[in-house]
Formats: sequence, structure tokens, C-alpha cells
Amino acid sequence: MALTRRQFLQTTTAAGGYSAGFLMMQSLGLAGAAKSEASMIDAPSAIGKGTKVIILGGGVAGLSSAYELGKLGYNCTLLEVRDRPGGRNWSVRRGTKIELNDHPLQTCEWDEGHYQNFGPARLPSIHGTILSYCRELGVELEVEVNSSRSSFLQNDNANGGKPVVQRQAINDTRGHISELLEKCLDKRALDQEMSRDDIDRIKTMLRAYGPLDNAGKYVGSTRSGYTVTPGAGDRVGEMVKPIELSTLMDGAFWNSMLFEETFDMQATMFQPKGGMDRIPYAFAAKLGNVIQYNSEVKEIRKTAKGARVVYMQNGVEKTVDADYCFVGMPLTILKTTANDFSDPYKTIFANSGNSGLYKVAWESRRFWEQDYNLYGGISFLSQGPSPVWYPSGGMFTERGIIVGGYSSGSNTPFDALSLEEKFAASRASIERLHPGHSKELEKSLYVGWNHVPHNLTSMSRVSFDSPQAFSRGGGRQSGGGQGAGAGEGESRATNPAYEQLITPDGPLYIIGDHAAHIGTWQEGAALSAHRAVKLLNERVKAAKLTGSQAGMTV
Amino acid sequence: MALTRRQFLQTTTAAGGYSAGFLMMQSLGLAGAAKSEASMIDAPSAIGKGTKVIILGGGVAGLSSAYELGKLGYNCTLLEVRDRPGGRNWSVRRGTKIELNDHPLQTCEWDEGHYQNFGPARLPSIHGTILSYCRELGVELEVEVNSSRSSFLQNDNANGGKPVVQRQAINDTRGHISELLEKCLDKRALDQEMSRDDIDRIKTMLRAYGPLDNAGKYVGSTRSGYTVTPGAGDRVGEMVKPIELSTLMDGAFWNSMLFEETFDMQATMFQPKGGMDRIPYAFAAKLGNVIQYNSEVKEIRKTAKGARVVYMQNGVEKTVDADYCFVGMPLTILKTTANDFSDPYKTIFANSGNSGLYKVAWESRRFWEQDYNLYGGISFLSQGPSPVWYPSGGMFTERGIIVGGYSSGSNTPFDALSLEEKFAASRASIERLHPGHSKELEKSLYVGWNHVPHNLTSMSRVSFDSPQAFSRGGGRQSGGGQGAGAGEGESRATNPAYEQLITPDGPLYIIGDHAAHIGTWQEGAALSAHRAVKLLNERVKAAKLTGSQAGMTV
Repeated sequence: MALTRRQFLQTTTAAGGYSAGFLMMQSLGLAGAAKSEASMIDAPSAIGKGTKVIILGGGVAGLSSAYELGKLGYNCTLLEVRDRPGGRNWSVRRGTKIELNDHPLQTCEWDEGHYQNFGPARLPSIHGTILSYCRELGVELEVEVNSSRSSFLQNDNANGGKPVVQRQAINDTRGHISELLEKCLDKRALDQEMSRDDIDRIKTMLRAYGPLDNAGKYVGSTRSGYTVTPGAGDRVGEMVKPIELSTLMDGAFWNSMLFEETFDMQATMFQPKGGMDRIPYAFAAKLGNVIQYNSEVKEIRKTAKGARVVYMQNGVEKTVDADYCFVGMPLTILKTTANDFSDPYKTIFANSGNSGLYKVAWESRRFWEQDYNLYGGISFLSQGPSPVWYPSGGMFTERGIIVGGYSSGSNTPFDALSLEEKFAASRASIERLHPGHSKELEKSLYVGWNHVPHNLTSMSRVSFDSPQAFSRGGGRQSGGGQGAGAGEGESRATNPAYEQLITPDGPLYIIGDHAAHIGTWQEGAALSAHRAVKLLNERVKAAKLTGSQAGMTV
Repeated sequence: MALTRRQFLQTTTAAGGYSAGFLMMQSLGLAGAAKSEASMIDAPSAIGKGTKVIILGGGVAGLSSAYELGKLGYNCTLLEVRDRPGGRNWSVRRGTKIELNDHPLQTCEWDEGHYQNFGPARLPSIHGTILSYCRELGVELEVEVNSSRSSFLQNDNANGGKPVVQRQAINDTRGHISELLEKCLDKRALDQEMSRDDIDRIKTMLRAYGPLDNAGKYVGSTRSGYTVTPGAGDRVGEMVKPIELSTLMDGAFWNSMLFEETFDMQATMFQPKGGMDRIPYAFAAKLGNVIQYNSEVKEIRKTAKGARVVYMQNGVEKTVDADYCFVGMPLTILKTTANDFSDPYKTIFANSGNSGLYKVAWESRRFWEQDYNLYGGISFLSQGPSPVWYPSGGMFTERGIIVGGYSSGSNTPFDALSLEEKFAASRASIERLHPGHSKELEKSLYVGWNHVPHNLTSMSRVSFDSPQAFSRGGGRQSGGGQGAGAGEGESRATNPAYEQLITPDGPLYIIGDHAAHIGTWQEGAALSAHRAVKLLNERVKAAKLTGSQAGMTV
């Protein structure tokens, strides 16, 4: 270091305060640059007094609607068909019964303390609204390890079918790419387009990026790991040999390598301790008897006053009238529910599809931790049920729950398999990655959302067109896939059916992740609720100003 | 999907068991491929009976030696100069006094529950030995988030000094590199060396890797984030514009971008809940009065029987004789301790240097979480104290401990600053990243290991040569730096001083991370202990077979 102490001080602090550089940065408003704010509702606290809202569906959209409306003084009733809150936010644990259409009844017999989130299972740190709810409701969170360099990629058409540890696939790919570019720069392939100086700067960078050796070659890297790890005394580490570039190109081996870079999948991520359903249960504890369980919606009607809902509760038909109705039921269920929605909405319901993400989960000794030093993270296979997802909860305990397969099942050969055949396929995936260990897998459970009563889909499709070509849409919830595209938001932006769906139909407001640009995420569900509450507030405020009744005033 | 159900089944499972493919994989021994085993000591359980070992230094090397020797029946005494176990494994919390040479006394006044690990602060999941100890000793672990895509890079000479969020730096760099390579391939720069087919396969890959658009351009990616995140209703996400390649090349901006790929720094990583010192305290609880605290070693002697150590305990000089002595003290301290080591060892002690990693830590409202959605991870600056390290413990609570600066301080301008000047420099670094927030920082503490009595260094240098050119060596503990090289192990492999150091000197055995190819890591310390125990077992066994006395028989 050639800097004097004085020079050093000058570069890091300025006498009496912060340097001009910092003040400039502040003036640029950088402080908030990284902030992804929770969606806050700004309204007079008693604005809802005297207005009745009925909410249909106790998923995250319905629960957060009821919670926010309650804060504002609205009189709410929430109807939920099941005996639990949460909807697709469903944590299965000992004693849970899994009733699926077209499948035998399954009962969870896992040890106490074990669970699987068969619906949403991660909370990205950039989803500020749902994280704020966890804070506000006291839901304890822990890190969800969405990516581990010790997890695997496997493809029957690459590397002789042998799994490759992700640290090697990722780092060797970067190394080879860097070497190829270096070679091209040496051949002066870009001399017409870039200055020699810029080219030199890139070459300097590639030395570290690859990393490349002094001759510009990628000869491997300790980033890719060791065949013998460094130890004590005379145990020198032996670096793993790089995988050939041609092998890395086989069978689109790279296909899942960048999953971790998908915006919503990037570290840092979280999960509630003990199960994702801690969130809906925390809402439910606040809402008390606002929630009516075991209440199946039979009719959704527009009335002169506002809205009327007919429902069956424990075999008894009941009716509730309200000024407004927030409809958070899956569109696939609205399709077969008698309703007064206008025709364009009915067309959307009719085409709402049956996308069916599934998961298979097993109880097992944690061989992935104890025998592979693999804690959390996801391994991807290019055939059969994929990915294999290692649990972030209960690490270092003896046994845990491992997922063998998490992707879209509807209209696939997998979906047509019997339950036992599905389990055999899942077991085979885990065996491909962890030979000899699939025999340790026990007590498998399967949930495919296209078979779940009262859902019939994992994601409600929003389209005026028939669902023939529909598989998963832009849903980014699944473990697999690239996530490289522009995301669902962009495609919805030019979707007239979506524009229709987010427009209130008289007293009826559609809420749910399907009414947000972050579909399948709880954040989208909560944001759709906040938006509906805000729209309602404006309407109620306007109605009060004009002295008109709430209800069909628009 | 064109596969029939039968075809699908055939590709994933085979009737009556596993397919030939799986059996092949098993025969290739893949099961153990990913396993990084704990170093286990295989010896008769009472082999040490009747043999006395004195252990100097209660760091991880000394503690694990005493623990393993105790299991094997050896009679052990461990001398530790301080009133606590752990050595550099030191967690500072409310009430801890920090006494440093050349600095005023500091006393920690942080709130209860807060702590900072001023020594080691992470446990990589591939360090099987230290993780096994945590399992065996019941030390509860939690994920240490070593990398978050929401953390920053900042360089006064790049991007006008404005911090860039890592998700953007990392993904835009990959995008530009991919586009450059695509351009070169289109110019047929590699046509002589690769087949058209291979080139096409690479181009297909670059589309997803970059990601590139259909024209082969990098036009940005949602992986890099949004200026407006997607929301509900009509709130469409606005993708962030890509940073220019030239900006990303400025001032070696990329320098710390690949830190997370350093082998020992890769996800998944851990930390003990409540402080790293849970590990030494767990050892200490098992060892009981084997450990003698407040015992400063004054002389290390070879005797006819074996070894003799003279020490001062609470002002009283004491002497202990033993058959063997494990020396786990820093080499910088051995340098000034009277001893009977042979001359080559003394030369190494004399040149052991004073590398001094430092940390500055502050208590603060968790503005990084609450205002930036930034949970754990590390931000890097190219000037001033760096990196800024966000805590992985206590996330979502109101206040926490943030590190502002963690790098080598010895022989740098920073080291020469007064304590208050050091704090001002640290505060300025945090202000660069989080403008307006440095005023929330309180109760700063500084530890520089070159100033810590009984250590005088963070890493013991192993060399016959004088330490003029010494700064940090190959130590990979610091947050900064590339970690791209071959690692310290390789350089030690051809280091004659290291070869000397790991060879027992009669009854004296050097232990510590400096006697391992993974220097500065607790794993190295524990492995060095295991190696010494194994060497001793062989010697004791041989001595018993020949009927000779233990001690100076070699």
C-alpha cells in the first residue's frame, strides 16, 4: 500500500462529516434504491364502518383482505370451504388426510415435527408484503436454502448419466465460456468494435472470472471442488479435473443451472419455522369468528343492495347479504359455481384450465446431510420426477422430509400413473442422484393440485381462449425451468382477459394471485387483496361524499 | 410431451428394481463421490492408558486434541492462558472487555443477545470434521447467509461511486460476456477449432445463459431485478436497465463478485446459534478440569522422560511433566517463549509474522433488513474498510450487529489509525452503501488480531524466510479477495518450512490451523489435532510393542 495515512483518511472520511461523494449519492436518492416496500394501505381508520363485505375463500388473498378490511372498520365474513385456513398454503404433517380426486386416500404417518409444504414453500426476501405480515403476525422465519453448491445436476444424455455436483457444473461452464471468449479476443474478433484498451480490460477480468491461467486457458479451479479435500499435515488437496465443455453442452445439461438466478428464487429466502401454514393460522388467530369454516359457496349473486352469497355449512343452506363481495376462490371452482358475474368473466372462468403442480415427499434418514454434506438446496434431473429438494428445516436432526419431484403434472404421462407408480418414479429419481439410498425412503405422499377438491388447479389461468395449449403458463413456482424470460408480469400486461379480471364487476372484486403480476406467489395474493381494499376504500369514500348508498353505485 | 405412459415408465423405472443405468452408476462408486468425511480416529479405546500428554493452548486444535486423547485413555492437561476456551474463536457480547495492545480498553455494551464473532464466523458445509463436532457436542447451528443477491458492490472509480446491487452486477456481467462470445461465434472466430454443430450447441446455451434475445443481444434480464417490482392489478414490473459493460469493467469492479464461489465460502454455510464460541464452550464442558485456565506457558522443555512445561498460574509458577506435549500456541507467541525446539522450528517461529485481520462491528437498527430487504450476505467496497457483513443471526428482530470492515490490517494505513479514526472509516464505508444510515450506528468495537495479546496475529505464517513481504498469505478467511487461485494448500505443498513444522520434534507436536492445508479455518485446526493424535497412537503402539518407554524413543 503506497497510501499515506493522511491520504487514506482523505479517501474514506472527510473532516467534519461526509465527503462530497457521499452527499452526492444521497442527493441521488440512493437510500431507497434497493427497498422493495410492503404495500401499505393509507386510509382513515373507520372508513369501513357500516359497510359489510363478504369474502370468499380463506387463502392468503382472502385472509389478508379480511385482516386489512377489519382494521378499517368494515364488517366482514369470510367463507372457507375447508376446516382450515390457507387454501393452497397447506402443510401436511402427522395425521393429515390427503383426499385427492382419482386417487386413494392418503394419511400422513410421519414422525411428529416433520411436515411438507405441498403448496408454497418459500418466501423471497424481496417479497416485502408477505414478509411484513410475518413480522406483524409474529410468524417465526428461518432461512430457506434454495441453492447449495453441493447439490446435483443429472441428465441421462450427459456425462454417462452420472450426476454432476453443481459447484463443478457452474464453475466449469463459466471457465470454458471465459476461455472461448479469450481465444476470440486473441484472434482479434472484436478489434473492429472495441478499443484495444477495452479488450485488455475484459481480458484482465476474464483471468479472475474464469478463472483462466496466465496463458488464457481454463485448467480448472478449486471453485469446482476437490477429489481429495485439503487436510492436515501432508494431505494436499487434489483439485477436481474440469468437465469437458462438450459434456456440459450435452442434453441441455445447463438447463437448470441458472434457476437460482430467477428473481424470486435468489438468496436470501425464508420459510416459516414448522410449516408455511403458520402464516394462515396466524391470520386466522387474528380474525377469530370472522372466518366461517366448512362453508361451501353455492351461489354468488348481485342484488340491489350489493351482493348475496348462498352457501352450505355442515349440511345447512345459508345466505349472507353484503354491500360488496371479494371473490378469492380459484377460477376453476367459480367455473362451476352459480354466479351473476358478467359474461366476459364467465368466459375467463370457463377457460381457467387445470394446471397441476405436484410434489412427492418422503420421510428418510437425512443421508443427503450425513453422507453427502448436502444441506438444503435443489438437485435437478432432466428426466423423471424433478427436482429433488432437500429440507431447510430441522437440519442436523436424524430424519427429515425430502421432495422427489415438483413440477407440472396435469396432462403429462406422470399424471396418468397410479399412486404407487408415481412413488416408484419419484424413488427412481432420488436413486439416480443418490445410488443405494432410495431404499431408505419411507411413507411417501403425493399431492397434485389438479386433483385437489376445491382447487382443481395450482394456478388459475386468465384467458378468453380455451385451455388446449395450456400447461404451466409463466408460473415460476416450480423448481425446474429457466426463469430467464421476462416473467409472467410482462405477458399479463398485454392480456385483455387479465385487464377484465382485475376490474371490479359491480360489487364483486376478484382477488388472488391470478389478479397480480406475480402469479402463484403469496406476495401476489396479498398484493391483490391490498389493491382491492384500496379500490373499495375509494368507492366507499366517494359514495359517502355523494351521500349515496354503498353497493351498486358504479 | 410425446411419450406414452409406458415409455415414460421405462425411462424412469425398470420392472422389479432399478434400471441397468442405476446399477452402472452404483458400480462406479458414485455414492461416496460427494461425501467429505469427518476425520475419524481409529484406535483401540484404551491405547493411551498410562501416557501423559500436556496440551498448550485452548483453541480448537488444543480442545479437539484433548477431547480425542481423552477418549483414548490418555491422561491430559491443557494449559490456556486466558480465562476462557477458544483462542481466536471469540464471541464478544455485553460485558466482554477487549484489551488490545496500542489501543484503549473497550467494553462491550450491546444489548443482551447480541454478539459478534471477531474470529471465525462461518462453518462451510463441506467442513465435515467441525460439523461432526457440532453434532456430537450438541452445538445448535443455523444457516449463515454468506451471499445475498440483494447486497452491494461499490467502487469510487466505477458507476460514479454508486453502489450496484449484486444481482445486477452478477447477471449483467454474465449477459454481456455471453453477448460478446455470441458475436465472436457469429463472426466465425472459432470455426477452425470447433464443429458447426458444437458452435450451435454453445449458441443455444448462451440464449439461456446470458440470457440473450433471439438476435443474440443481451437486453437485460429480470434476473438483474426491477426498478418497479411486479405487483397486483395493473402494476406491471419494470425491468432494470442493464449496466454497460464498460462500467462493469471499471476499477476492477468485478473483483469481489465471485467471492461466493470460493470453495470454502459456497452455500450452504452455518454458524452456531448465539455465537461461534458455543463450540469451544461445548468442548470445555466435556473436558472439565482437564483445562487449566489463566495458565501462561513460560518454558517448553524436552526431558529424558518426554516433555516439561513451566507456566504461571494466577501468579504462581508451576511445572508439569508429561510423556508428550501438543503445542497449539500461535507461532508468534512461541517465538518469545523459552523452548527446546530444534533450530529449524525456532527459525520458523522467528519468521511467523503478524498478519492481522481485523473487524469493526456496530450495533444498529436493522435498516438493511427493514429498509433494503437485505438479510445476511456481504457487500464489498473497493476502498476503505470492507466488506460490510450483515448478520445471519436474529433476523427480523429490531436491532442487530453489522460488520463494517473485515480485512488485513497489519502494516496498512488503517492499522495506524486511532480507534476513533478506525470507527470513522468504518462508518464511512457503511454510509457509502447505505446513505443516511451511518448515523444509526452505535457502540462500535474493533478487534485487530495483530494487537491481541497472546495471539499477535490472525494467522501464523510458516516460513524459513523473514516476513518482510508478508501480508496475508493465502488466507481465505477474509471477506474480500478473489479466492480464484489454487488455494493455500498448494503453496504449502512445496514449502519446506511447512514440511518441518508438521514433523514432530521428539516429544513435541505442533498443532493448529498452521499445520494444515486449510489455514485459518477451524476445520484445519481440528484436522491437525486428529493427525497428531494418529501419529502419537502409532508411536505409543510401537513403543508398547518393543517394550520401551514412551517418550523420547524416536
